[in-house]
Amino acid sequence: MAESVERLQQRVEELERELARERSRGRARTRIEKMSAEVVDSNPYSRLMALKRMGIVSDYEKIRTYAVAIVGVGGVGSVTAEMLTRCGIGKLLLFDYDKVELANMNRLFFQPHQAGLSKVQAAENTLRSINPDVLFEVHNYNITTVDHFEHFMSRISNGGLEEGKAVDLVLSCVDNFEARMAINTACNELGQTWMESGVSENAVSGHIQLMIPGESACFACAPPLVVASNIDEKTLKREGVCAASLPTTMGVVAGILVQNVLKFLLRFGTVSFYLGYNAMQDFFPTMSMKPNPQCDDRNCRKQQEEYKKKAATLPPPEAAPTEDEEIVHEDNEWGIELVSEVSEEELKDSSGPIPVLPEGITVAYTVPKKQEDSASEVMVEDSGESLEDLMAKMKNM
Amino acid sequence: MAESVERLQQRVEELERELARERSRGRARTRIEKMSAEVVDSNPYSRLMALKRMGIVSDYEKIRTYAVAIVGVGGVGSVTAEMLTRCGIGKLLLFDYDKVELANMNRLFFQPHQAGLSKVQAAENTLRSINPDVLFEVHNYNITTVDHFEHFMSRISNGGLEEGKAVDLVLSCVDNFEARMAINTACNELGQTWMESGVSENAVSGHIQLMIPGESACFACAPPLVVASNIDEKTLKREGVCAASLPTTMGVVAGILVQNVLKFLLRFGTVSFYLGYNAMQDFFPTMSMKPNPQCDDRNCRKQQEEYKKKAATLPPPEAAPTEDEEIVHEDNEWGIELVSEVSEEELKDSSGPIPVLPEGITVAYTVPKKQEDSASEVMVEDSGESLEDLMAKMKNM
Repeated sequence: MAESVERLQQRVEELERELARERSRGRARTRIEKMSAEVVDSNPYSRLMALKRMGIVSDYEKIRTYAVAIVGVGGVGSVTAEMLTRCGIGKLLLFDYDKVELANMNRLFFQPHQAGLSKVQAAENTLRSINPDVLFEVHNYNITTVDHFEHFMSRISNGGLEEGKAVDLVLSCVDNFEARMAINTACNELGQTWMESGVSENAVSGHIQLMIPGESACFACAPPLVVASNIDEKTLKREGVCAASLPTTMGVVAGILVQNVLKFLLRFGTVSFYLGYNAMQDFFPTMSMKPNPQCDDRNCRKQQEEYKKKAATLPPPEAAPTEDEEIVHEDNEWGIELVSEVSEEELKDSSGPIPVLPEGITVAYTVPKKQEDSASEVMVEDSGESLEDLMAKMKNM
Repeated sequence: MAESVERLQQRVEELERELARERSRGRARTRIEKMSAEVVDSNPYSRLMALKRMGIVSDYEKIRTYAVAIVGVGGVGSVTAEMLTRCGIGKLLLFDYDKVELANMNRLFFQPHQAGLSKVQAAENTLRSINPDVLFEVHNYNITTVDHFEHFMSRISNGGLEEGKAVDLVLSCVDNFEARMAINTACNELGQTWMESGVSENAVSGHIQLMIPGESACFACAPPLVVASNIDEKTLKREGVCAASLPTTMGVVAGILVQNVLKFLLRFGTVSFYLGYNAMQDFFPTMSMKPNPQCDDRNCRKQQEEYKKKAATLPPPEAAPTEDEEIVHEDNEWGIELVSEVSEEELKDSSGPIPVLPEGITVAYTVPKKQEDSASEVMVEDSGESLEDLMAKMKNM
């Protein structure tokens, strides 16, 4: 009888351990010290390391040296975090103050059993079990309040892979104008490169945009062509309505965002300054914008001055290093160029009335007020399409 | 003592139940009888039903009446299944014969703790817990073997939402030529509309393609412009190499595939016949192709004859019903049109040498052998770009 009790007690302990293991879900694989290209079923990096043999990326392992901050862990941010985690990024910093709700289940990533958890905590649990090699730092707060904004700034400056170093990239995956402006302000002050993303309230268009302070237009210089209108989700909800969303559009936007991040960090392909997605017509406009010398953000203007000074010391384009040579100029180490192909006349023609667009979408691109003659400084470039063409296409959206 | 044993036995039973519940993970929400647009945190459909208020979709609830078959539940197929599940599709039929491996962890969806499970079983577990309103039917076999091919055909014909009715759409998310040809053969014989998807072996390009038997080119008429070369993954692995893959490219391809499915089933926007994705340059070509009258597939030729006969009885385009009128012609109920804008001359010019492309990608588009003068039957249309332009752009890929 005593033996039977002992056996049952053992079984209880055994089951409790098993249950704990099942619940932690972090059991699936141990950490991997060094990325390997070996082709075995148990190697989670074989398909990524194959990018080297295919001639796409020269040094894939370098991804482990990068830290990326993601602000907003919703429909776009959570998928963005999952993609970077699966790619084996060095460190992720997640910022969000929202809770998981069943109403979020029409987008990828979160699952019904996580309802009620904070988005950053739920995300960290899942991501850690997917790839325990990634370092995670999560902050469950709203970056737009004064105290949190300061803390956010300090984590961007010091939360790199090595504490005290800045992160390599900040990604904006938020759903409101205020948070975008807060990220813009922080990045202009710190000279921090970042990428912005957005999905319209009718769920059928989106965009990504790369911002290099001083070099490209910031969010205050010229907001993206198509953005969700400036309505807070909370206000909408109080009125008994909500924005539409689709896992498809959000998945595509997260996909093109992280693809741009990989191209930027691992230096392959062409990094896009702006890439739009119109799901109704499968139209994907690209372009790039120069900064606005009259930008409202003082730090943007300061960064522009500094960029101009540095650019003046760079050799002319003819003498630019070729792909095979080592790139020595830190300030343009990714070899990204901003090109302007639209004439002043075309630009003047394009500043006509705002095109008719579906409810919930606004065309945020406007030529700044013509103080002096500086309007010509805002330039639009895309692969073969004039701004007029773009505007015409947008009219048909 | 006897009491103590009983208590322990109860505890063991309790723990076993708890463990089973934890493992099933289907506990998160109960089934929902009717889709509601109510804006409350607990409604998983509020953001989808908002598509009606936004004027994008007229009858979103109709999604529950459709059954979709997905062949291949890997990097693209699993995300495709998850998106359709979260959108509240009526029924999903999944076909795959592979097991989950850690080597798949660089793509979305599967998690390390699922390693060793069959892909269809692991997918069903996860998807059912995400949305218990969807009906699932999974088949753990290879559709290309004779017996399974016959069973696959019978499930396409009878596995609709109502047993005995055909499914509404078949999606090909496979990674090899043989399986694509098997789906093509089945769909031509059954007159079943399907969509094909693919990602190149260097992981940086992909495509989707819509096939309506008799109306558009089938996979045997003119394979997609850019496809992975015809190498079996298993063969590659034996040789110690593997294809590269990225969660980004696969996420984008799944996103544009399911977006096309939603547009097709729920009748909004423009359904794409072909949409490509070149990640290196963020280039997204679109076009459509007419079927080849000399197609090797006898059933494709038969479907073409039937389509021609039916098309002859349709009113001329001028008299086509407008959007508001009820569409009465079953055979073109989605109002899709195939347009040809390339002249015979342009086509002749374009049939030159195959462009130089990265290893692992082949340009599969070729003008069929000129028996008689039928080459002009293969037509390419896209939004403003000639085939020449496309070929020139592809040269730069």
